[in-house]
Amino acid sequence: MKFYSKLDHITQKNKSFLCVGLDPDLKSLPEVLSGKKNPFFEFNRAIIDATADLVCAYKPQNAYYVAEGFERDLEMTFEYLNDKYSNVVSILDSKRGDIDSTAKQYARESFDRYRADSVTLNAYMGKDVITPFLEYENKGLFLLCKTSNPHGGDFQDLRVKNGDADEPLYQHLARKVSKEWNQKSNLGLVVGGTYIDALKQIRQMDTNLPLLIPGLGAQGGDLNQILDTARHLKNKRIIVTASRSIIYASKGADFASMARQKALDYHKVMKTFF
Amino acid sequence: MKFYSKLDHITQKNKSFLCVGLDPDLKSLPEVLSGKKNPFFEFNRAIIDATADLVCAYKPQNAYYVAEGFERDLEMTFEYLNDKYSNVVSILDSKRGDIDSTAKQYARESFDRYRADSVTLNAYMGKDVITPFLEYENKGLFLLCKTSNPHGGDFQDLRVKNGDADEPLYQHLARKVSKEWNQKSNLGLVVGGTYIDALKQIRQMDTNLPLLIPGLGAQGGDLNQILDTARHLKNKRIIVTASRSIIYASKGADFASMARQKALDYHKVMKTFF
Repeated sequence: MKFYSKLDHITQKNKSFLCVGLDPDLKSLPEVLSGKKNPFFEFNRAIIDATADLVCAYKPQNAYYVAEGFERDLEMTFEYLNDKYSNVVSILDSKRGDIDSTAKQYARESFDRYRADSVTLNAYMGKDVITPFLEYENKGLFLLCKTSNPHGGDFQDLRVKNGDADEPLYQHLARKVSKEWNQKSNLGLVVGGTYIDALKQIRQMDTNLPLLIPGLGAQGGDLNQILDTARHLKNKRIIVTASRSIIYASKGADFASMARQKALDYHKVMKTFF
Repeated sequence: MKFYSKLDHITQKNKSFLCVGLDPDLKSLPEVLSGKKNPFFEFNRAIIDATADLVCAYKPQNAYYVAEGFERDLEMTFEYLNDKYSNVVSILDSKRGDIDSTAKQYARESFDRYRADSVTLNAYMGKDVITPFLEYENKGLFLLCKTSNPHGGDFQDLRVKNGDADEPLYQHLARKVSKEWNQKSNLGLVVGGTYIDALKQIRQMDTNLPLLIPGLGAQGGDLNQILDTARHLKNKRIIVTASRSIIYASKGADFASMARQKALDYHKVMKTFF
């Protein structure tokens, strides 16, 4: 199934824009998992089983796994999603951004090794970054556009001139993705949830592109405002991610059921937008 | 030892700017290594032993290892470099570019897990990308600036306005790194070897910053031209990388000695610049 169709299907089915970030961290893991052989996978499995009917996507963040040498846990997490929840979208958050044969290796990692449905990419090196990834026709690619960190504007907000246009770099990038690069209809953009105006501008520019929106919970984005932007524009292709606020809702033995509670809180708001 | 000092020391000692890219690929590996338990490490070890007196640095490209699930080979390669050739600079080429706790995990991966001397980074997300890496005071960080791929100019060459300045994005980035971010004197820039003018401009802007210059051999950069730019500016902090032209000089059992031959060819030119 094409990536956009898969996303549309699960979004409608679960009436949810919620993506749970699977960012396990040895220091924050519930004590009940200590001593397990694949603690990150065991943690993820419990979170996934507790929330799968409330989400449209899961997004494991590569950094947490590679810092510990726990690539096997990451493999097992994607295997589990592919086997048991194959209708839910998976996103490998690795922000790759390389070229030529190197980019090809990263595409193989993302789609052959991990069998993720989609991946995040950094396009500073230009279109060559996405080329090898485009050969996987049912996969989605989310390009970093406008991010919600304190210094996100260092380069993204610089005004760039190109022909008659004079706009911030992130808008130029969004336009390039929308008008030139998305010929296979499988690209999306990462836009921080704290920038409602940017969300609105980008949505107005292209009502088709999926938007991956980090910034809920710990990062301070406002869910109602984000969804309001989506509602007015009648587009459901938005994926709102929350990580720590869900996965560490409790560090006790009840961590999975508390994660579900927190996901239910988000879901209660989200389903009113359907 | 501080990163700049380590680089200066090995550059002078070996009279070399050469960095060998360790990019092993199962399809291109010499047949003599087939069936080995850690074929990428075995390959790297042979290349390293054959060339260590001719180089200033080695640069394993993360993508080749993670595509195969060969992280152990990457660990063993850095262990080997740290144990046996600790005066040679190691560069983990992973082009990380994330923020907050995620960037911190990548810093742990780079410097605690792999114990690389330095790492490549992508600063599209702004200064937050480098913050956690700066806590490792003897480590070097190479930020992508002007890259040599066909579509490298998509964003890097856009003219940006900032106050009175009106210059390409890559120059703006170089200036920011040079004037604002390099307070710990451990940053460098990645500048493609096919852009001699860019090399010259950046070197004139800052004679202190190490430049990591890919593009020799397969990518078409001209060694004499690159070094000429360096010579006129009397700065030795340049690292010129070559990968396939050295590591795949032969695919026979003589691959290591042929790699040395090719490295000697480069070294013969380089040492005249000392």
